[in-house]
Amino acid sequence: MMVCKYGGTSVGSAALIRRAAAKIKRLAEDGEQIVVVVSAMGEDTDRLAALCGEFGSASARERDRVLASGEEISAGLAAMALCNEGVPARSFTGAQAGILTDNAHGKARIVDIDTAALRDSLRRGETPVVAGFQGITSGGDVSTLGRGGSDTTAVALAAALNADECRIYTDVRGIYTTDPRVCKKARLLAAITFEEMLEMASLGSKVLQIRAVEFAGKYRVPLRVLPAADSAAPGTLIHYKETDMEKPAVTGVAFNREEAKITLVGAPDRPGIAGQILSRVAAADVNVDMIVQNTGSDGRTDFSFTVHRDEFAAAMNAARAAAKDVGARNVEGDSGIGKASVVGIGMKSHAGVAAAMFGALARENINIRMISTSEIKISVVIDEENLERAVCALHDAFQLDREPAAE
Amino acid sequence: MMVCKYGGTSVGSAALIRRAAAKIKRLAEDGEQIVVVVSAMGEDTDRLAALCGEFGSASARERDRVLASGEEISAGLAAMALCNEGVPARSFTGAQAGILTDNAHGKARIVDIDTAALRDSLRRGETPVVAGFQGITSGGDVSTLGRGGSDTTAVALAAALNADECRIYTDVRGIYTTDPRVCKKARLLAAITFEEMLEMASLGSKVLQIRAVEFAGKYRVPLRVLPAADSAAPGTLIHYKETDMEKPAVTGVAFNREEAKITLVGAPDRPGIAGQILSRVAAADVNVDMIVQNTGSDGRTDFSFTVHRDEFAAAMNAARAAAKDVGARNVEGDSGIGKASVVGIGMKSHAGVAAAMFGALARENINIRMISTSEIKISVVIDEENLERAVCALHDAFQLDREPAAE
Repeated sequence: MMVCKYGGTSVGSAALIRRAAAKIKRLAEDGEQIVVVVSAMGEDTDRLAALCGEFGSASARERDRVLASGEEISAGLAAMALCNEGVPARSFTGAQAGILTDNAHGKARIVDIDTAALRDSLRRGETPVVAGFQGITSGGDVSTLGRGGSDTTAVALAAALNADECRIYTDVRGIYTTDPRVCKKARLLAAITFEEMLEMASLGSKVLQIRAVEFAGKYRVPLRVLPAADSAAPGTLIHYKETDMEKPAVTGVAFNREEAKITLVGAPDRPGIAGQILSRVAAADVNVDMIVQNTGSDGRTDFSFTVHRDEFAAAMNAARAAAKDVGARNVEGDSGIGKASVVGIGMKSHAGVAAAMFGALARENINIRMISTSEIKISVVIDEENLERAVCALHDAFQLDREPAAE
Repeated sequence: MMVCKYGGTSVGSAALIRRAAAKIKRLAEDGEQIVVVVSAMGEDTDRLAALCGEFGSASARERDRVLASGEEISAGLAAMALCNEGVPARSFTGAQAGILTDNAHGKARIVDIDTAALRDSLRRGETPVVAGFQGITSGGDVSTLGRGGSDTTAVALAAALNADECRIYTDVRGIYTTDPRVCKKARLLAAITFEEMLEMASLGSKVLQIRAVEFAGKYRVPLRVLPAADSAAPGTLIHYKETDMEKPAVTGVAFNREEAKITLVGAPDRPGIAGQILSRVAAADVNVDMIVQNTGSDGRTDFSFTVHRDEFAAAMNAARAAAKDVGARNVEGDSGIGKASVVGIGMKSHAGVAAAMFGALARENINIRMISTSEIKISVVIDEENLERAVCALHDAFQLDREPAAE
């Protein structure tokens, strides 16, 4: 069994929906059981979000009601297209597909999936077409999973149905070593480990939603990103195999343009402070990306974190409240920053990646504002104006345009 | 309590939705309990229907899923607009509002309304905003009530909730003596009886859906048609009072452009034939308008009926099958006809209305193809090219441009 998800650009018109249906028909003829997940057509979600925007800080419940309609429309149309191809199909809203979420309208989390209705449909020989991005709360209200949530729907269904593969059909050819629009030498990867993908996705390779990748990893669902337009292209497989230690240290360069950075200057350097600060931020429903704190002096330290630029104002308010709580001296914010990261499982066993990275940036005369590292990635915060130059310099420095010999 | 329904042109943009919300706020401030029903925004239903049309004879279930989204969007937005006006509001899909229908997708009938959720909402001091035009089948599928079905939703809710008045806000000022676009002398009626409105609506005054009027009559829900743009205009009240016998014979001239006529020529003139013919037509899901059969001769008679032009092909097929069943000689069809009718409760007590009507048409040299009469209306089928001329001639003949003295 396979879950096949089509993104907005892949179902952006009746003709594209027909193309997707023809592709699904071929898979079905190969004997695959298929569950289809669709996003809203093209820019429909943006259009609906703009309509909601006309009503200011609208009720989150009503906003979800409006936004969810986009996927319900494309699911109905895709089911029609499949029926026209001779493939019995049936559309499912999130509610009809049994996707139960919490009440966090606009960024709801899937709590449970009751697959009974979908399994019945499959048993009848139908191809279910599920509206992505949405679910239902225990109170019966429509909820949405947040932007890109259709990927999450697809992976969650693949996990719940024990599917063999979850395919994400999109408008790119797969996962690249970095964004080809920023760096022309970017190379398509045939495969990437789950851990690497997690770092790449979270850092701004906008192909897959981070939550979808996490879900996939949790249930070890093999995930394949492939182009909707080219039925022969294999795309990129996200897998769970042990990595060849001969693999080069760095697999890709990820980056994120629209970051903002906030620093609580002179916070007391004692246990519990970080937690106190972050609980303020969490209460404001702001998603924190990087968190950096260096060794303090004189009983004081600086505590920094980054957020998406859209949440900068809310995060600054939370930070000011937190500064009062803990007695920090002041709060500084900068909404003009970006983040560049090198990612690679191979990095674990290779010394010198950080040195090579910082050296490449120095040669470009790019000042590093913050540094954060994990087992398989090194991230730097820099002024946004330097971001694209930094990405290309790092791609060159690690020779990512060359096919690795060991692969 | 009042049910207020806003049609597509009255919620066609964010600005218009805000205008409707402001109006509802004023009503609410006057102490009215209000349930709002909305159509899809502007041409949204047409846009969605066109999308469905791209998939040929699409699954009716899926078509309903797609079409119903239009009203779900406008209901969410209208609830937002009300909240912004300080009026607590909550959107309801047809399913959430408890509107249970049969399984006739595309033209579903309301079977029952469970008002518990709406009453809870009203009890909480909210203004419920219900997505018109839709319901849910007992199997949990979304159904639609057919074009104009939001009027039916409004009236059905008014009946189920025992509302004092059902207001249909629209883009016309009320009910006219005939269509002002066809006859410039058309006059706005302050009031019209339910029976007259029934005949006017069924014959093509496109202001209200016939089913909505029937529903209103069944439960004697006072219905008011009024302009969304002008908050002072009283519109036209559809009432249930006994009519003043001094009232002029004719209240209005209704007409229908897009009719088609089908005749089974030389059908056996014996009991049961008409029923046999019509059951074939009904089985093809074709709505029949007029039915005319004249006295036969030689044991044979001609049986005619009219349908909407969209259903002409289906009706012809059904008629041919019926002709075989009953042994009629042949089937004739004409899709180029229209129907003009004079309507008026006063007609009951006034002789000579028919004579005046046929005389007026004769003076215009318009040939009458079929005639049908009821207690309060006389209809003629004529070639469509003569229709507008006929309507104006009848409006003149009965002096409908003049305010009646007795009113």
